[in-house]
Amino acid sequence: MSEHDPVQNQPPVFTLNDVRIVMVDTSHPGNIGAAARAMKTMGLADLCLVSPKKFPDREASDRATGAQDVLDQARVVDNLDDAIADCGLVVGASARSRTLPWPMLNPRELADRVADHPTGSKVAILFGRESSGLTNDELARCHYHVHIPSNPEFSSLNVASAVQVIVYELRMREVLAEAQTERAWGVEWDKPPANSQQLEGLFNHWQQTLVEIDFLDPTNPRTLMSKLRRLILRAQPDEIEANILRGMLTQIDKSIRKP
Amino acid sequence: MSEHDPVQNQPPVFTLNDVRIVMVDTSHPGNIGAAARAMKTMGLADLCLVSPKKFPDREASDRATGAQDVLDQARVVDNLDDAIADCGLVVGASARSRTLPWPMLNPRELADRVADHPTGSKVAILFGRESSGLTNDELARCHYHVHIPSNPEFSSLNVASAVQVIVYELRMREVLAEAQTERAWGVEWDKPPANSQQLEGLFNHWQQTLVEIDFLDPTNPRTLMSKLRRLILRAQPDEIEANILRGMLTQIDKSIRKP
Repeated sequence: MSEHDPVQNQPPVFTLNDVRIVMVDTSHPGNIGAAARAMKTMGLADLCLVSPKKFPDREASDRATGAQDVLDQARVVDNLDDAIADCGLVVGASARSRTLPWPMLNPRELADRVADHPTGSKVAILFGRESSGLTNDELARCHYHVHIPSNPEFSSLNVASAVQVIVYELRMREVLAEAQTERAWGVEWDKPPANSQQLEGLFNHWQQTLVEIDFLDPTNPRTLMSKLRRLILRAQPDEIEANILRGMLTQIDKSIRKP
Repeated sequence: MSEHDPVQNQPPVFTLNDVRIVMVDTSHPGNIGAAARAMKTMGLADLCLVSPKKFPDREASDRATGAQDVLDQARVVDNLDDAIADCGLVVGASARSRTLPWPMLNPRELADRVADHPTGSKVAILFGRESSGLTNDELARCHYHVHIPSNPEFSSLNVASAVQVIVYELRMREVLAEAQTERAWGVEWDKPPANSQQLEGLFNHWQQTLVEIDFLDPTNPRTLMSKLRRLILRAQPDEIEANILRGMLTQIDKSIRKP
């Protein structure tokens, strides 16, 4: 392969496999299970638990539902250093106000940093205690802090919900990186859009029918047809949809001419 | 205030107060509580519950922690129509594959649509059953569907986690709102969007008329009404436009009954 093969110039594929979620001193096993489920739905698998109060635990498994494998593979360690030793980027979830200012990202900016991080180098994202978050000492081990924007009057985000938001942003970043050509339709939209000729035929027919049923006064049409055009054009009908409307008009014409 | 006061030319401030979270047939009260907490942390307060299995319930309150006020103010109704009757934009959370394609947004695109929606007109975002989501009939009431990108091999997102992701995106959009003031319309759009009640009235009337002119066979309706709904909902009709279509149907009815 040539040195200038265009394929080699593409940015490295962003991978979620390099991202580890680290939960520190978690009190409620249900939150560990919910975090595992959140991770798996977003395509992450590397969970590390620092001194969890109760783990393994029935409640963790209940909340994990189909993500028991993430719990089974979770590494349990005694101290934070063991959890992050091999990581090239460490980010701690934090409320906004800390005595010592630190580089602060929102979750979207975090996803950008993670995507820019060299493939193969591990990234750790740390989540603290339900009651009090991460300590200042733990936060000082981080390259960045990440803050999830919240209601200033009630910023008490559940820890598994915080994991959900962060891993969602990572997945969105991956999805957007992969395919900016993603279609706006729920499944592949395979009908060609009605062309201008078909649409003009539709609007002309529609107008005649409206005159025939005395809904449109041809001597005083006002903006009726313009409003109908604007409505239908806004929806960008496909050929089938345009045909349905044409068919309906034909059937109205027949019905009013019945003896 | 002068007619040319620049304040009047500014786009209306994006507000989360217009957004209602609607949970349909929720089985586990814990999920309702967790959704209430997610809402409050992101600054939302309007929760509507359609036929919850158990509510109010101790488990809902436990999971809500400081968001008991959202639960206390939640409206409980018997059917979806009552939940969305006054809403000008209705969006349903959906898995990707459905038989009839529908305009599909990701959560970020949804936040953009909500931000562009006229202030004062309610927006409903629907979340379905834990086991099976929203029915096709419920999804057909929606202008758009929203899909949270997920792991194709494990897409089982918890319903409260789905609420968390969506309301997080809405809050992020609000946080970023100052920077993105561009409007989606060529000029200021001054007519209120038709609400769900008006639209359902329109579609019911339309269906009756189509049966009456023998365009729709009630014993074999196939996807005709779904296709018409999808077309019209995609365009998000305003009240005037919906009234024009209603008026047209009334006039067709009169015309075919003429002696």
